[in-house]
Amino acid sequence: MVEAAHCMLCRIVRGVLRVDSVVNTARIIGFVTQHEPYARGHCVFFPKRHAISLHDMNDEDLAEILPVIKRVATALDLKTYNIILPNNGALAGQTVFHAHVHLIPKWTEADGLRRAGEPPAGIDQTGIAQRIRERLRII
Amino acid sequence: MVEAAHCMLCRIVRGVLRVDSVVNTARIIGFVTQHEPYARGHCVFFPKRHAISLHDMNDEDLAEILPVIKRVATALDLKTYNIILPNNGALAGQTVFHAHVHLIPKWTEADGLRRAGEPPAGIDQTGIAQRIRERLRII
Repeated sequence: MVEAAHCMLCRIVRGVLRVDSVVNTARIIGFVTQHEPYARGHCVFFPKRHAISLHDMNDEDLAEILPVIKRVATALDLKTYNIILPNNGALAGQTVFHAHVHLIPKWTEADGLRRAGEPPAGIDQTGIAQRIRERLRII
Repeated sequence: MVEAAHCMLCRIVRGVLRVDSVVNTARIIGFVTQHEPYARGHCVFFPKRHAISLHDMNDEDLAEILPVIKRVATALDLKTYNIILPNNGALAGQTVFHAHVHLIPKWTEADGLRRAGEPPAGIDQTGIAQRIRERLRII
């Protein structure tokens, strides 16, 4: 496994930092977080292999993480919940620089994830789809 | 493909509703959304097979969707962005009842996804990890 010496999530992988884990596969760890939970049962999932952002994760780790989260959501009998990968880049709120996914139950209106405001007006989406298509032919 | 007659995303699959698609695999469609984009390049990805929530999606569709999103994020040279599956249950804000994933670039502080407030205090995480572990042995 690729690990980073001072990364909090890599410390969990090494067993230096203890968490209340619910999933531990060859690729993915999931745990009930005690750090700023947004709702009871708020879990965090991450690849054992160190990766800063989603686009640094390998496809095998990416392919496993959502089926694992589905199993935990099913185990909790969750019907309403949000899943967020909030932390790709400091500007997007990243504070832990090891990619991870939150499963946040929404038991009531008051708990869980809440939206901030309405979408901004005047976003220009013209042309960007064409740019993506052109780049996808290259990459 | 399983489809739902009046589902907006199934209408895209059938070609009845046109979108500016950037990805169209056997399983997954991704498009640049013109409906309330939160930032330029805001894309929506969804399984062709109708599923209401993440926990209704099959593991194969779940396994493919994040690697596909990674390719689009790479095509856009995105460094900062949020990925959210916001729509699992009406209480969690679901308005389109076909599971989908948002890729929301954050080009500046002002655009993209913004957090609403701080995590609530006093969330009790005690015991729920044990409950999940017990259920995972059963399910």
